[in-house]
Amino acid sequence: MVKIAVDAMGGDYAPSEMVAGAVEAVNSAPGVHIFLVGKEEVVNSQLSRHTYDKGRIEVVNAKEVIATEEPPVNAIRKKKDSSIVVGMNLVKKGQADAFVSAGSSGAILVGGQVIVGRIKGVERPPLAPLIPTEKGVSLLIDCGANVDARPSHLVQFARMGSIYMEHVMKVKNPRVAIVNIGAEEEKGNALVKETFPLLKECKDIHFIGSIEAREIPHGGADVIVCEAFVGNVILKLYEGVGSTLISMVKRGMMTSLQSKIGALLVKPALKETLKSFDASQYGGAPLLGLNGLVVKTHGNSKANEVKNSIIQCIAFKEQGINEKIKESLMNQEK
Amino acid sequence: MVKIAVDAMGGDYAPSEMVAGAVEAVNSAPGVHIFLVGKEEVVNSQLSRHTYDKGRIEVVNAKEVIATEEPPVNAIRKKKDSSIVVGMNLVKKGQADAFVSAGSSGAILVGGQVIVGRIKGVERPPLAPLIPTEKGVSLLIDCGANVDARPSHLVQFARMGSIYMEHVMKVKNPRVAIVNIGAEEEKGNALVKETFPLLKECKDIHFIGSIEAREIPHGGADVIVCEAFVGNVILKLYEGVGSTLISMVKRGMMTSLQSKIGALLVKPALKETLKSFDASQYGGAPLLGLNGLVVKTHGNSKANEVKNSIIQCIAFKEQGINEKIKESLMNQEK
Repeated sequence: MVKIAVDAMGGDYAPSEMVAGAVEAVNSAPGVHIFLVGKEEVVNSQLSRHTYDKGRIEVVNAKEVIATEEPPVNAIRKKKDSSIVVGMNLVKKGQADAFVSAGSSGAILVGGQVIVGRIKGVERPPLAPLIPTEKGVSLLIDCGANVDARPSHLVQFARMGSIYMEHVMKVKNPRVAIVNIGAEEEKGNALVKETFPLLKECKDIHFIGSIEAREIPHGGADVIVCEAFVGNVILKLYEGVGSTLISMVKRGMMTSLQSKIGALLVKPALKETLKSFDASQYGGAPLLGLNGLVVKTHGNSKANEVKNSIIQCIAFKEQGINEKIKESLMNQEK
Repeated sequence: MVKIAVDAMGGDYAPSEMVAGAVEAVNSAPGVHIFLVGKEEVVNSQLSRHTYDKGRIEVVNAKEVIATEEPPVNAIRKKKDSSIVVGMNLVKKGQADAFVSAGSSGAILVGGQVIVGRIKGVERPPLAPLIPTEKGVSLLIDCGANVDARPSHLVQFARMGSIYMEHVMKVKNPRVAIVNIGAEEEKGNALVKETFPLLKECKDIHFIGSIEAREIPHGGADVIVCEAFVGNVILKLYEGVGSTLISMVKRGMMTSLQSKIGALLVKPALKETLKSFDASQYGGAPLLGLNGLVVKTHGNSKANEVKNSIIQCIAFKEQGINEKIKESLMNQEK
């Protein structure tokens, strides 16, 4: 039985969608036990609307909530009875294998490091969302946890990301690339130039060299390594360009009677195609390299994404990802 | 009369589209005189296909061509008779006001600094392409010329970009923002944190704070300031996500008979809408802060983009952008 703590209070649609997602996960995956962390009376009232195996969802009371705009370090330090701190403590104590939250990114990143703690040898735990591509999905690592990273951090990101893609996403021998401004080895800023030869030396990853941002949506690599500032820009621009273009396509279709009729006819097929470019179906972003697992789902997650994030945690636990990361770090030291 | 040198030999569709673009510019803009730089016999043979005022296009012979894959510093140093070096020398000597090329980006950036030279006081000349947004167009500055920039460089980028948008693109009081990973002032990497307060102090620009990458396609600012590595990632990801989504939309429309019929009906309206998201209609990317003007157009430029780049140079010259940049730098020193 994989035990997963879920933050019932964080996210734009909390608590209803968080609770609904937990119920959906329990109803679809037999091997999972869930701790719903949040204000007891609120969570219970939400739960009463659903039908599920009552033995597999447990409510854990947490009277406080960390708001997204709160300074994260302070919030984690002071709000000891918040859903994020209580949920992460369940992981720390080994009572839960993972913690899923759609709440404050900052608080989740800080809490992951301070409460759950890093695996010995991991220098910085990266946030690694899956991003959609023409060919499926790629792991973008790092994406917000550590700005101003050093080359050794990026090498660890490459290793951890490769393990994740191979064993959770089942991509055989995943192609690892570093984000760069040209395909040639001599291109790049100081960080990339220093990191490139180190990645080339790694025998436990399939390093294919530099990737230009243009090739990312075309599925040019499975693990996209970069420092967090660049990763954050990539993730958010992906969303921004995607949503802008889709809204422009919709608007374009509404400009004449002829195009409106056409729009009705293409809608079903188009919806299906664009669904494959929707990140939410792949679950949340794991914070890798921790003693346990913390997954950040989108702030605007609905039940389906919450369910997918929970199911992602099951694969993570069952595949022994953290044990594999520890092993890889030991090989690195040799 | 504004005099513009055009590289007839650089670009995927050179010489035919470069020559055609020059002819279109002369035929549509009365105040322009063009030097077509390249292999004389090749250029003349292309020109013979067109009708135009022969007094306004002059062929300047250059026997060599710099290929895109050549190391730029070496190429600029050794190929003295290449179209890029000859064209830039025309600007240096004051015989031309501007130089337009679709050739090797690296050689254009190096040549701009080494041959044309910087305006006194400009620390680094940024490459500043226009990118399409929902609301029109924004200037992305810097985008490939200088990696590992310092805060003082970014402040100059903001000033020069603001002048360009106000006087060439006619955006009144352009909103200047710095690319960041959150909207709050305390967010960011070391470079952004150091630059932010310096931008706040600038009295000659309308600084609106940080911009997250998500807001760029929505038109969140007119001048988007960032260092070149991040700018390059933004520019190329824009292209990548855009082309991926458009090809997915097209593929989605071809999946059933119903959607194929719908596609025929929406096509004209959609084409019109997506045209506004096509960067090529706005011309090329100026390399700002030089003693003259160098404009890099896309490698895959066709005649229309070449023409637009030439017309952009006319506005640059007529509006006295370089004089305004010099003035701004003098005010800065006070």
